[in-house]
Amino acid sequence: MPLSLRFLGTSASRPTVERGVSSIALVREGETLLFDCGEGTQRQMMRYGVSFNVGDIFFSHFHTDHFLGIIGLLRTMALQGRTEPLRCWGPRGALRAMKKCEVVGADNLPYPLEVVELAAGDVVRRKEYEVQAIAADHRGASALGWALVEDIRRGRFNPERARELGIPEGPMWGKIHKGEPVVLSDGREVRPEELVGVSRPGRRIVLTGDTRPCAATRIAAHDADLLVHESTFGDEEAERAIDTGHSTAREAATIAREAGVLRLILTHLSARYTRDVSDLEREARSVFPKTTIARDGMEINVPFRDADEESNEPAHQ
Amino acid sequence: MPLSLRFLGTSASRPTVERGVSSIALVREGETLLFDCGEGTQRQMMRYGVSFNVGDIFFSHFHTDHFLGIIGLLRTMALQGRTEPLRCWGPRGALRAMKKCEVVGADNLPYPLEVVELAAGDVVRRKEYEVQAIAADHRGASALGWALVEDIRRGRFNPERARELGIPEGPMWGKIHKGEPVVLSDGREVRPEELVGVSRPGRRIVLTGDTRPCAATRIAAHDADLLVHESTFGDEEAERAIDTGHSTAREAATIAREAGVLRLILTHLSARYTRDVSDLEREARSVFPKTTIARDGMEINVPFRDADEESNEPAHQ
Repeated sequence: MPLSLRFLGTSASRPTVERGVSSIALVREGETLLFDCGEGTQRQMMRYGVSFNVGDIFFSHFHTDHFLGIIGLLRTMALQGRTEPLRCWGPRGALRAMKKCEVVGADNLPYPLEVVELAAGDVVRRKEYEVQAIAADHRGASALGWALVEDIRRGRFNPERARELGIPEGPMWGKIHKGEPVVLSDGREVRPEELVGVSRPGRRIVLTGDTRPCAATRIAAHDADLLVHESTFGDEEAERAIDTGHSTAREAATIAREAGVLRLILTHLSARYTRDVSDLEREARSVFPKTTIARDGMEINVPFRDADEESNEPAHQ
Repeated sequence: MPLSLRFLGTSASRPTVERGVSSIALVREGETLLFDCGEGTQRQMMRYGVSFNVGDIFFSHFHTDHFLGIIGLLRTMALQGRTEPLRCWGPRGALRAMKKCEVVGADNLPYPLEVVELAAGDVVRRKEYEVQAIAADHRGASALGWALVEDIRRGRFNPERARELGIPEGPMWGKIHKGEPVVLSDGREVRPEELVGVSRPGRRIVLTGDTRPCAATRIAAHDADLLVHESTFGDEEAERAIDTGHSTAREAATIAREAGVLRLILTHLSARYTRDVSDLEREARSVFPKTTIARDGMEINVPFRDADEESNEPAHQ
């Protein structure tokens, strides 16, 4: 069950020659979610092979560099003959912002556009995972971060042992895997703990949007597989980060270390770092070595921690 | 006095991997004018080295692929600390469209944004040239094309002959060049026709915006140095061109031939031609050989017809 992130725009405030403005596509088992949609996102999607069959867009906030691309994307989806609904999620203000976008786009869309405002702590529940809205601290703006949290998965089923015990392959295997005891034709009872390992965590991915380093991120990112944190500035502009409600690379790395994440990606870089990210990289890695600076088009795969398990899943799943 | 066009976006309706949506930068003697400003224009400007010190943007009409980029461009100009006014010109509806763009962009701009609605026949007068609004025929939309027409220039001044006649270099040369007779210190009168050649035309460049082939274009482009015509479709979609208010390559070439232009550039291509323009090129050239299909980043220089004249201009100019 592959899960990957594709960085579509990694520049703060305005695009540069090298970087578009904010957008990340998260692809999980063929489903594509967008996080933010800055100007030019639709072209970046084409450039990097991201499907337009997006069902959900999560907006961190409504500063122009995070949402202007939705206007053109809505129109192109209409041109493509889309009929499936598109769901847009964002903090308070989302309805108003999306209404303005629709007004600029003018024509009626041939598909339903559903806009929902969420507050920190709200959850979008899906089969096998949920997206949680996290508080952000961005100059008092109505802003959120997001955590995609997969459900706990059942422990592994042991097919060899099942065969040894003479349990016929089929519905009984599924029942046992789901945690139910079964009674065989010869009257023996088999309890699930004999064949099924301990439950395994799903993956947890946290994306901050624009924010000062904050406790909400640290809590949400506790033990996460991946933290994508904004990192607009380097040490030399630490004051400016405070003034503008952004984070430095070092501050983001400190959150990553405190949260105990497996891996940190920094994005949303000020134009001055568009070509040379070495300062940001050095400052962050001095605090948290497993840091990568995002670049446009970069794809990050997020594996399960118990890696090669996929091939061991029994056929009844 | 160089004049060049830089194609920033050459795709119709939506961007492709290869092409952004509509925008053309016209640079004349260091002054930059934009014609249309589709999504992503600001990044294309960066990519192709077009100055952000743009004073005027001319909009052909307000379908999204021709103006969405103004929202991000206005914000970036604000970030850059712009204080000079920006003038936006467009057909009826421009005020409403630009107001919507300002509303989406949210914050107040730190520079004046002046929006003026024009009708076919209206003229924006500048020193040495004017921009004329031309009628367009685009499915009943409020739409315009544009002609940049340079003033007629004075005939060439002949400095060798002036010296032969014993006219002292200085203000007298200027007076004669401007068409005034002068009286020398020995009482001789010199008439301008003795020293100044016939007046020479300026350059004429016509850009259609979106339109069916129409008489207004043909008339405005009469004997033009350059016609930039939309060419959304090829012969095989001639019916669709009619239905959607666009032109085929062949139709654009026919206008170019009838108008007797020096050169034709085709732009605003449907996505199906984004990589392979050979059909469009062949169909157009069969009617008008001096046709070029635009591509993003392409720069076209438009010389004066009396080419190497520049170096002959006397120093008093």
